[in-house]
Amino acid sequence: MAPIRLGMVGGGKDAFIGAVHRIAARIDGEFQLVAGALSSTPEKSRESGLALGLDPDRCYGTYEEMAEAEAARPDGIRAVAIVTPNHMHAGPAIAFLNRGIHVICDKPLTATMEQAEELAAAVGQAKALFILTHNYTAYPMVRQAREMVARGDLGAIRVVQVEYPQDWLTEASEAAGDNKQAEWRTDPARSGAGGSIGDIGTHAHNLACFVSGQQVQSLAADLQSFVPGRRVDDNAHIMLRFDGGARGALWCSQVAVGNENALRLRVYGEKGGLEWAQEDPNYLWFTPFGEPKRLLTRRGAGSDAAANAVSRTPGGHPEGYLEGFANIYAGAAQAIRAADAGGRDPVLDVLPGLEAGLAGMRFIAAAIRSSQANSAWVEL
Amino acid sequence: MAPIRLGMVGGGKDAFIGAVHRIAARIDGEFQLVAGALSSTPEKSRESGLALGLDPDRCYGTYEEMAEAEAARPDGIRAVAIVTPNHMHAGPAIAFLNRGIHVICDKPLTATMEQAEELAAAVGQAKALFILTHNYTAYPMVRQAREMVARGDLGAIRVVQVEYPQDWLTEASEAAGDNKQAEWRTDPARSGAGGSIGDIGTHAHNLACFVSGQQVQSLAADLQSFVPGRRVDDNAHIMLRFDGGARGALWCSQVAVGNENALRLRVYGEKGGLEWAQEDPNYLWFTPFGEPKRLLTRRGAGSDAAANAVSRTPGGHPEGYLEGFANIYAGAAQAIRAADAGGRDPVLDVLPGLEAGLAGMRFIAAAIRSSQANSAWVEL
Amino acid sequence: MAPIRLGMVGGGKDAFIGAVHRIAARIDGEFQLVAGALSSTPEKSRESGLALGLDPDRCYGTYEEMAEAEAARPDGIRAVAIVTPNHMHAGPAIAFLNRGIHVICDKPLTATMEQAEELAAAVGQAKALFILTHNYTAYPMVRQAREMVARGDLGAIRVVQVEYPQDWLTEASEAAGDNKQAEWRTDPARSGAGGSIGDIGTHAHNLACFVSGQQVQSLAADLQSFVPGRRVDDNAHIMLRFDGGARGALWCSQVAVGNENALRLRVYGEKGGLEWAQEDPNYLWFTPFGEPKRLLTRRGAGSDAAANAVSRTPGGHPEGYLEGFANIYAGAAQAIRAADAGGRDPVLDVLPGLEAGLAGMRFIAAAIRSSQANSAWVEL
Amino acid sequence: MAPIRLGMVGGGKDAFIGAVHRIAARIDGEFQLVAGALSSTPEKSRESGLALGLDPDRCYGTYEEMAEAEAARPDGIRAVAIVTPNHMHAGPAIAFLNRGIHVICDKPLTATMEQAEELAAAVGQAKALFILTHNYTAYPMVRQAREMVARGDLGAIRVVQVEYPQDWLTEASEAAGDNKQAEWRTDPARSGAGGSIGDIGTHAHNLACFVSGQQVQSLAADLQSFVPGRRVDDNAHIMLRFDGGARGALWCSQVAVGNENALRLRVYGEKGGLEWAQEDPNYLWFTPFGEPKRLLTRRGAGSDAAANAVSRTPGGHPEGYLEGFANIYAGAAQAIRAADAGGRDPVLDVLPGLEAGLAGMRFIAAAIRSSQANSAWVEL
Repeated sequence: MAPIRLGMVGGGKDAFIGAVHRIAARIDGEFQLVAGALSSTPEKSRESGLALGLDPDRCYGTYEEMAEAEAARPDGIRAVAIVTPNHMHAGPAIAFLNRGIHVICDKPLTATMEQAEELAAAVGQAKALFILTHNYTAYPMVRQAREMVARGDLGAIRVVQVEYPQDWLTEASEAAGDNKQAEWRTDPARSGAGGSIGDIGTHAHNLACFVSGQQVQSLAADLQSFVPGRRVDDNAHIMLRFDGGARGALWCSQVAVGNENALRLRVYGEKGGLEWAQEDPNYLWFTPFGEPKRLLTRRGAGSDAAANAVSRTPGGHPEGYLEGFANIYAGAAQAIRAADAGGRDPVLDVLPGLEAGLAGMRFIAAAIRSSQANSAWVEL
Repeated sequence: MAPIRLGMVGGGKDAFIGAVHRIAARIDGEFQLVAGALSSTPEKSRESGLALGLDPDRCYGTYEEMAEAEAARPDGIRAVAIVTPNHMHAGPAIAFLNRGIHVICDKPLTATMEQAEELAAAVGQAKALFILTHNYTAYPMVRQAREMVARGDLGAIRVVQVEYPQDWLTEASEAAGDNKQAEWRTDPARSGAGGSIGDIGTHAHNLACFVSGQQVQSLAADLQSFVPGRRVDDNAHIMLRFDGGARGALWCSQVAVGNENALRLRVYGEKGGLEWAQEDPNYLWFTPFGEPKRLLTRRGAGSDAAANAVSRTPGGHPEGYLEGFANIYAGAAQAIRAADAGGRDPVLDVLPGLEAGLAGMRFIAAAIRSSQANSAWVEL
Repeated sequence: MAPIRLGMVGGGKDAFIGAVHRIAARIDGEFQLVAGALSSTPEKSRESGLALGLDPDRCYGTYEEMAEAEAARPDGIRAVAIVTPNHMHAGPAIAFLNRGIHVICDKPLTATMEQAEELAAAVGQAKALFILTHNYTAYPMVRQAREMVARGDLGAIRVVQVEYPQDWLTEASEAAGDNKQAEWRTDPARSGAGGSIGDIGTHAHNLACFVSGQQVQSLAADLQSFVPGRRVDDNAHIMLRFDGGARGALWCSQVAVGNENALRLRVYGEKGGLEWAQEDPNYLWFTPFGEPKRLLTRRGAGSDAAANAVSRTPGGHPEGYLEGFANIYAGAAQAIRAADAGGRDPVLDVLPGLEAGLAGMRFIAAAIRSSQANSAWVEL
Repeated sequence: MAPIRLGMVGGGKDAFIGAVHRIAARIDGEFQLVAGALSSTPEKSRESGLALGLDPDRCYGTYEEMAEAEAARPDGIRAVAIVTPNHMHAGPAIAFLNRGIHVICDKPLTATMEQAEELAAAVGQAKALFILTHNYTAYPMVRQAREMVARGDLGAIRVVQVEYPQDWLTEASEAAGDNKQAEWRTDPARSGAGGSIGDIGTHAHNLACFVSGQQVQSLAADLQSFVPGRRVDDNAHIMLRFDGGARGALWCSQVAVGNENALRLRVYGEKGGLEWAQEDPNYLWFTPFGEPKRLLTRRGAGSDAAANAVSRTPGGHPEGYLEGFANIYAGAAQAIRAADAGGRDPVLDVLPGLEAGLAGMRFIAAAIRSSQANSAWVEL
């Protein structure tokens, strides 16, 4: 089948996540990048587009320009990837959705709850799909973990421990003058009121819910900003109560020295326990109560259909972050083709979208509110 | 030097921790067990004593009897190990301390705060020493971790994550009729009001304070009893604020399937991070910020004087739980010999005693109070 | 820059390695697959080509046909990937090289030494490049390991331990009738005289030489076929003597139950040691003698320019097998563009080619000869 | 029961292994050290004895003196531990065996084959037991591994990989003048003709045979002395053929930088595989073919009777090197009590003794012979 024509908003030079999206879109050959509004100024946008080999006609100065022009072309884009800082998600997403162009958007949903609500309204009215790249849910062994919980391998879930420590903001990198990532991610105007909780805590929250099959109902949070002058939280301890009866704890940090990107999930039920770590994503530890721990490997013995469906290589040939991310794109392609044919592909059941995005926004808001109320329990 | 004559209260047949204390006392040849009141009934006590090869004259029916008789003997015991259930710590401890006999007591300090206060008064007036077997602090790499923090290798401490999951109470073992350990450890009358928080949470709390060099000032707790009919908590999430400015989280559980005895500590400061796990105790991970993670091994390259002082074998020849426990006994022997000679051995700076015990009791009380107050922050 | 037009020989339905090559070629957007002779029969070839979305005109029935037609087209392919069973490497490679089309060929070089020599002659006369996909050398931390040895971080190399255990041929899968991979890989007519030594032993041999910077000078081998009826070796023990004075051992196995694809290399010198494992490829362990072991991570602290140059994601965002493989393709693209411009790109210093392929063939031949001579030392 | 009276030959100040034997003898309270000839000169011997708290009458100047005197005492020792350098094993062992005193002797058996034969003759005629401290066989999970192989859990054994790398002789420590361990262990007069193969290779060889249940029938060896001036091998590659059809490889090294005491065994059969590592001895990895890998833990789920019988603490409370060593002593005590009562305790089936010692001597001799014959296969 011909690849789906894709546009991109954001992701110019020096952007980390834009390049990730482009590779993820390319791995399975399901998308072809043909248009872009890649930077914050028209000049840089065009420059970045040309550097990526885009047709000069389709290197746009702004997303509005791009939305209008592409919607008008017979060979216009069918989908757009939005990889801008958080405060620039809602605007472009709405612009493209309103024109029937499918949106694949980076997380968190938006910078503010108001933006989130506007976007939600647009999604509700749109015929196009809205997909949010909570990419960690698309690792094969995470998909399998979710299935195992869903089919009862662990029994009723009691405890969910999720953590996401990093150390890249241990020092005041945002003040160094040469670290754009640190700058916008610690700037409330661009990233929203949450710092670590928005940037990585939302991933942890999303993963915990995705695998446990339960939603966080309320939380009690203690947020900190350890680095002097930092305007957002860089560490957070959060206790969780889930709607299915599970209890849990979430820890995220960007000042935990020695941690690169150590997202880790542990789920314990009446009958078994599961452990998974993002940095070693091809492994899933499963212990049925009273039996030895088992090391389930992607596409190895013990790997199930949910994992195999999103694997490209045999067991022992490790897949990584980009393949996990690509699974979101592969799923999106499948869903888009079905939608364009008037149907609905069941992959949407595991693809994060508006609901996951709104839950993340409520998570951020509740965590801030709780922390301001000296860690009182707050409903999401 | 001749070994120190030791008595034991509790630790008869089927007791887990009594045998551990006996091996720990024996490993370095510093103690000789010569007397005991080993069980809850006089008959069983004598039977257990004979089975251990004690002189029949020194197999006592009760601890009171033993305290009196041994204090009167010219060759009476110089120290006693108390390894009974928690509600039976204070009585014997006071009886021996009052007679000038050194006490080595299992943790937690007592079952109730009232008992703790009585015991504290006795310790205050006694000439004899009171040592509490928070054994995990005596692993060589834990001693080294404390030293590293103390000498500033990590800079100011920001975050302390400590957890202690087990799974042996996943089911209602206390109701099975054949599990004495489960019975008394879930019986508030014998173990105190805390379940998992008393049994293992106190170890986690103690370890976090020992290594970080900070005390927990306040906490917010959410305790659960997942197993129907259980009378004490079997899982606890607790957020921590330390007096030196650090923040932390403590999780303990006895229903986390797949965990045997997985006490684990992580400490993060402005300049570095440390990670240690009880089940692999010969390793200490240290990351100076901006450098690769280093694997420090007991008596290997990177092992310091604090670790080496309590090591018996070269690097790569693993020491374990019993050796760690024995380090408490070896320290106790050193302290006792100095005390009996009218001095004070500096090993007391790292040996847990009354202060650690009282802190543990305040931790349990605060956790329960907080949880009852819907996780309000409670001062210790 | 416009992608390089690529053709493929082999890699039709059910082929494992063909799909890997296609993803690897696609990840960085440097190649575009436009032509193929994908299967052993003309019909299947065309069917497979259409399934991949190739232009029907460029779905060829045979590689000869494809070589001729593509060489004649103004928009003909500039490079071809050869992903057939081993006995079908030399023929197509020579056909394309002779027409000035660059060749990217799967390993081992050929099935027989005669084929290898013919191919060598063709490479020698060709203006086009010949690249062999010893993909494991292109993992970032392997490239770094090589650099570390080269710049003397380990001092003079003494010992090289390399192993490559798998378990997928534990049973007689080649006789099951439904496992094409097992069939051709255990068929001397198609895979050559070596079984495990050809399929995976050559990877291990190549990796050991690549990192150590030394060539195997002689070897003593003991090959086994444990599975009844198997026509090639499925396990091999080989002792190695290197031309730079190092000694080593190589073990490869396809019957080592519990191993998926466990290629692992350890290199020890006078001043330091390195350890790397393919299944956890983002880590490199380095121990300077007398210091603690260090965990170097891809793009983390301790990652060097050689590793960073072939990395796409930040530390803690794991890359895997496909990205490693893609590094061969990215390097090939760089080398091809330079060659087509009349130059030579230094990436060719680390890209495996004819020399590595011939060394592998000599390795296979020597191992068989030695084993037949009751493990006598045989020069390569 | 009263402890068995024990004497010791060797093990004075600065000796590593003497202290290990003493702790191992003490842990279970089965032995009491009452006599010693602890050093190479009478003065030092007496001094070391007094430092250990021995009765001055029983601090002997030489082992001959001790053998005579103790044999004559009504309360004389029943057993003696011999912990001298290898060339001083046979003399004392024979002296005590001839007097009916049980011998627990460090490995390897002797320094020369002649000594081994003399000792064998003495053992053959003695009524006393001879036990060799191949301590690694007594780790609980090693005992379990042996049982699992014996009862067929792995099916017929095909491949045995054993390795024992260390790095403490990376430099010429024997020439430094302050390292007695390095001096005697690299001195052929004291340690025998084997260097690393005698010191640690014998452990590896013994472990491989113990677990696989097969004996090494022939071997092909390539020994090296990497450190200039070293008089014995410091690295060895050895290929193995077992009498039950298994093939294997043994690597031992004392110059493998980054390895402390990394003895590791892997055994693969038709139906399953096992992996065990001495530095993490509480774990045993077991993979039934086609199923996920399982982590068997000492006294955890999956731990069997053979492991539990020699365990002292519950799962998750790690045991180490000293407890493993103590299992030899505990077994010796059991065997000695039975022997003194005229019987034979079945523990002798798993306790290493003369046979294991002779096999080790043949292993050393064969390895040297093979290496001198350019790695020809040599029968043991």
